[in-house]
Order: sequence, then C-alpha cells, then structure tokens
Amino acid sequence: MKAIGYEEASEAVRAVFDDIKATRKLDDVNNFWKYLAHDPRMLAHVWSSVKDIMGAGSLDALTKELIYVAISITNNCDYCMASHSFAARAKGASEAQLNELYAVVGLANMTNRLANAYRVPVDEAFKTG
Amino acid sequence: MKAIGYEEASEAVRAVFDDIKATRKLDDVNNFWKYLAHDPRMLAHVWSSVKDIMGAGSLDALTKELIYVAISITNNCDYCMASHSFAARAKGASEAQLNELYAVVGLANMTNRLANAYRVPVDEAFKTG
Amino acid sequence: MKAIGYEEASEAVRAVFDDIKATRKLDDVNNFWKYLAHDPRMLAHVWSSVKDIMGAGSLDALTKELIYVAISITNNCDYCMASHSFAARAKGASEAQLNELYAVVGLANMTNRLANAYRVPVDEAFKTG
Amino acid sequence: MKAIGYEEASEAVRAVFDDIKATRKLDDVNNFWKYLAHDPRMLAHVWSSVKDIMGAGSLDALTKELIYVAISITNNCDYCMASHSFAARAKGASEAQLNELYAVVGLANMTNRLANAYRVPVDEAFKTG
Amino acid sequence: MKAIGYEEASEAVRAVFDDIKATRKLDDVNNFWKYLAHDPRMLAHVWSSVKDIMGAGSLDALTKELIYVAISITNNCDYCMASHSFAARAKGASEAQLNELYAVVGLANMTNRLANAYRVPVDEAFKTG
Amino acid sequence: MKAIGYEEASEAVRAVFDDIKATRKLDDVNNFWKYLAHDPRMLAHVWSSVKDIMGAGSLDALTKELIYVAISITNNCDYCMASHSFAARAKGASEAQLNELYAVVGLANMTNRLANAYRVPVDEAFKTG
Repeated sequence: MKAIGYEEASEAVRAVFDDIKATRKLDDVNNFWKYLAHDPRMLAHVWSSVKDIMGAGSLDALTKELIYVAISITNNCDYCMASHSFAARAKGASEAQLNELYAVVGLANMTNRLANAYRVPVDEAFKTG
Repeated sequence: MKAIGYEEASEAVRAVFDDIKATRKLDDVNNFWKYLAHDPRMLAHVWSSVKDIMGAGSLDALTKELIYVAISITNNCDYCMASHSFAARAKGASEAQLNELYAVVGLANMTNRLANAYRVPVDEAFKTG
Repeated sequence: MKAIGYEEASEAVRAVFDDIKATRKLDDVNNFWKYLAHDPRMLAHVWSSVKDIMGAGSLDALTKELIYVAISITNNCDYCMASHSFAARAKGASEAQLNELYAVVGLANMTNRLANAYRVPVDEAFKTG
Repeated sequence: MKAIGYEEASEAVRAVFDDIKATRKLDDVNNFWKYLAHDPRMLAHVWSSVKDIMGAGSLDALTKELIYVAISITNNCDYCMASHSFAARAKGASEAQLNELYAVVGLANMTNRLANAYRVPVDEAFKTG
Repeated sequence: MKAIGYEEASEAVRAVFDDIKATRKLDDVNNFWKYLAHDPRMLAHVWSSVKDIMGAGSLDALTKELIYVAISITNNCDYCMASHSFAARAKGASEAQLNELYAVVGLANMTNRLANAYRVPVDEAFKTG
Repeated sequence: MKAIGYEEASEAVRAVFDDIKATRKLDDVNNFWKYLAHDPRMLAHVWSSVKDIMGAGSLDALTKELIYVAISITNNCDYCMASHSFAARAKGASEAQLNELYAVVGLANMTNRLANAYRVPVDEAFKTG
C-alpha cells in the first residue's frame, strides 16, 4: 500500500488530517497517518484516542512519550522508535534522559525473564494493589 | 527451585541482601532476589545494575518505575507487574497516574502493530536522531 | 547463508520443491523454501504441515491466511507479512478486508495489554470452554 | 485494583456499560469493562473502537473473532484467550474450527521464526502489495 | 477443552501416543499431547517433527532442550518452562547449568533491547554469514 | 545517535573498550559497544555481566552462544542475530548445528503457542523442579 496524501484524501480523512495539523501545529501529518488513512474509521479512532490520552494529564506529556518509546523498543518497532524518540526530543528529552531510558528498558527486559525463569511467586506485600 | 532465605544464604549472597536492605530501608528482600540467589554472580550483577540505574538521575525515580511497569505489562510478566506497580505506588504514583499509564501502554501496543501492518516508511524528519 | 536453488539442491530437497510447485501451480518456490532447504528434514516437516493445514478444511483457506498475516504483524516478521499478505490477496482478500484485518490486529494488541495491566480475572461464564 | 460494578459507577461509565449491554444483548458487562472503568476516557475509546470494528464489515464477525483469538494466543494473554474463544463459540465457531485455528497459530509462530533465523529476503513478486 | 486420554482416543491418536510412549519409554504421554489430540493431524505433525529434530544430531539432545527452555522463558509459557526444564534435568542438566542458562536468557533479552534502542548498524564483519 | 569511537571516547569508556579488546583479542570493539558508550555506566554493567557469564562455566561457551542466537531469533533482533551467529561460528558452530538450532527455535515457538492455545495444565510430574 501507499501513503494517502491530503490531495487524494476523502473528506473524512481530510477532517482528521486537519485536526492533527491544528493540534500539533504542523504543516503536514507524518507517514503513520497517511497509511492509516486506508481505513478512515480506524484513523479517526486512533487519532481521537491518541489526542485525548497523550496530552498532559495525570502524567506529563514527556513521561508518556518516554513510555511509548520504551514499549516500541521492547516490541522492536522501527517506525515507532524513530517517531516517538523524535517526539520525546521535541518535548524536551535530553540525550542523557534517552540513554537512561534505554538502560531501564534493558534492565526491565532482563529482570522480566529472570522472574519468569525462576517462576518467582508474588510476595504477599505486593498483592494489595 | 525454592527461595533462598537469609539464614541459608552464602556469604556472597548475604552481602548483596544486606546492601539491598540498607539501600531500600527494608527488613527483608523480596522474592525476586531470594530466587536469583541461586546464581550469586548474576544476583550481584543484577542488583548492582538496578541500584545504579533505578535511582534518581537524568530521569526521576518514579518515571523509571512507570517505564518498568509499562514493559512488564507488554511482556505479560505477572511478578514484574505486581512488584513494580507496588514500587511505583511507594514512590508516589496515584491511581489516576497508573490508569493513564495503562492507557498509554494499550495505545502504544496498538499503534506499534498498525505501523508494522502498513510497513510505514520512516519520515525523513525522524532520521536526524 | 544463501538461497539453495533447484539446480544445486539435493534429491530430497528437489522432491519437496516439486511437490510445492505442483500443489501451488507455480514455476518456482519462493525464497522461504530455498533457505529452509539448508535443513532438508525441517523443510520436509514444515512443508508437510503447511500443505496439510493451510488448505480448505473446517476453516476456509482465506480465513487461515488472514490469521497468518495477523500473527506475522504481531510478531513483526517482515518476510512473513509480505508473503502472507500476498497470499491473502491471491486467495481473494480485498484491500478493504486487509485494512479491517489491520484494525483488528491493532485493537487486539491494545486490549491484550489492558487486560494484562488490570490483571482482569476470567469471568465465570468464560470458563466452560 | 477492583472491578467497578454498575452500582458504584459514574454517569459516564454507566453510559458506556448501558451501550455495551444494549449492543450485545447482555444483562451485565464482563470483567474487562469493569476494570477498564477505572479510566472512563479509555473505556469510552476502547468500546467505541471495538463496537465499530468488530461487527460485520468487509470481514464477517466470526473471522474477526478468530483473528482476535490468534493474537491473544501469540501474546499469551489468559483473559483474552478465554473471553475471545468464548465469543468465537458464541458466534458459531465449531470445535473443529478452533482446533484448526490453533494449528495455524502454531505454524505461523514457527515459520515466523524460521524466516527470521534465515533472514530470508523478500521475493520480488511479494513487493507489489 | 479437556485432555483426551488413551481410552477415549481414536485409532489415529492412539498410534501417535503409542509411538511417543515407545520412543520415550514412558507409561503415559504428558498433558501436552492429550490436548493436542483434539487435532489428530496436527498431533501427528508436531510429534513427527519433535521426534525427528529433538534427538541427538549435530547438536546433542541436552543442548537442544536448554534452547527450548530459553525460548519458553522468553515467551513466558508456563507449561513449556515446566515441561522442558523437567526434560533438561532428565537429560542431565545440573542446577548450576540451569542457573547459568537463566543468566544467559536475562542478558540476551537485555542486550536485544539495547541493540534495538540504539538501532545499532550491523558491523561489516558480521555480514559474511 | 552515532557510534562513539575510541578517539572520541571518555576515559571511563576507553577502559571498558580496552578490556573488551584484551579479553576478546580484537583490534577494535564492535558497534554494539560503541553505541552503548553513550551511557558509560550501563556500558560498564553490561560488559561486566557479559564477560562474567558468557565464558565457559557450567555450560560451555558455545552452548551459551547458541542460546543467545535462539533468543535473538525469537525476539527478531537483526543486530543480535548477526553478531551472535557470527560469534557462534567463531566458537566452532558448524552450518549443520546452526540449521538444527533454527529447527529447534521454530519448533519451540510452535509448541509454546499450542500449549497456550489449549491452556494445557502442568503435569504433576513436572512440578517437582
């Protein structure tokens, strides 16, 4: 499949593109949205969810973006690592912070498997949450 | 395998247990460390890395703990979700923050697969990082 | 490693290649089989299983191909996404169907993680299966 | 965290619960929604997406449910396997179809790794899609 | 679904069960095969592949079993970790070897993510294989 | 980010690079370490763990390298597959052994999902470990 640009997009798709550009103060949407435009319903759902959740709320926007990067690394999604580490930098992440993020991602993926390997039972103290 | 308690632990293992308890101001270490004690070298490496990286640095300790939870959810590690969401609460995470974290984890796992599905090419703008 | 073409293949490998070509009415086998030919036993096992399971049975062949694509997206396997979405189109999948498939894959990966995050207990009604 | 039942739910959550019950002709919503209710915004987004995508469209509802099961197996999500195989049966899946689905999931996860292992290059013929 | 025991199994299933018992010198097959018996074709394919590949060959049987355990830990498959670590012990794995295996699994999952995070380009020297 | 070469590296990074080169008898370190050098603490931790665990111990060095390859295939990490299959060959792995390894990785990923799909209960006999 190919990217769907603004010129060839349907009315419904353009409405989402316009909202993305206005919300993010960009001249154009990035490739992710141009491909997702092949399914206008899903485009609308994904954008609506992302717009609602990824702004500042109980967690600040940078923290959320760093979490996004961590998951994208764990899942080995190239596009997602590139786009969300770009976004993290745009929201103020320093190189030192990204490096520290990568260290945490490495440690978590290590200890996740060690916990699996030993089939560690959950401590009583952790069961209250 | 079984947990290795302080009483039955070797000198090398006790030294790590003592450092964990002193650093975290706890009376006992949790199950993860008691199982990892079956391999004293790895116990020492993992604790040394976690101690060094998970404290406050370029990123604050709570942000790192939230990233840990996000990865544990993505990898479906029961013990890790329980222990790190407990730690996140202990470091001040509110229920609202945890719920928002879960929302981000859901969205990231969705958009990771949509980016895969459409094999979206990386935008030029994202290649600078 | 390199692809093993028909000319350089052993008798055992040629026999499998011939069966693939006859079954699928193709002039040549695709790259997957030419690499798997490095292990003639596994080549035979994999082809035998795929031939037996992927044809029409209780589920029609297109449905099975779509399931294959969904898993390949979830696992982020480039070759598998390319070859099985090609096969799905060859078996009649429309662009609308593929887009809808991608939407389902996105949703399932999202709700899988939300179920993990909240450690949702299985409803009694679901335990009969 | 605990399930949020109808009695203790907020107005916004009840509205979603009511729509789920009316759409699915059920007396109560299942546990997934009662936990997701901890984040009313995400509850609304997830339900809205699922309602819109999982009904009959370009793909029939049963096919989509089978794809959901396949991904849940691949991700090893207990709750998701239980709830979506239940839903698949409710939509008419026979035991023979579920067994065949499991076979396809097994094969796909095997061949995904074999394609990775040999780093098989994508055939020219597959690049048109 | 339920386990299918020898008494209630079809002729085709019994033939596979008999071969498993004779090959492994056991009085009964373990649960995995009793469930897989719901799909006699797949039962036959899986057993045939496992029997052919998992015995001693270019790699000894214990090494293969350890690899199986490592993958089962990485995928977080409870049944698979239990059955294949049991098999590894039966084939002579010591506790020290299993602990060392777990350490390697932890390290590999850590460095896999660090390589992803930094998007490390493949060294020229590694491209010959 | 870019690779950090010896010339531009800090003292702390050079010390680790020197130890890698001396231990492995190489003229230069490979790219993985040059990128990880962006976080000197993590560079030191990872190298220290890898040096300590990946040499001969209860398991021989080749077996550990093969386990590393198996996990890298399962996680679909390109760099890791390339570097660790190179290392496995350097430690004496034959092509026949690598092909057999790939077969085991394929089988394990298949049976992991079949065990998930049928939610096979752990046999009593396997619970002793």
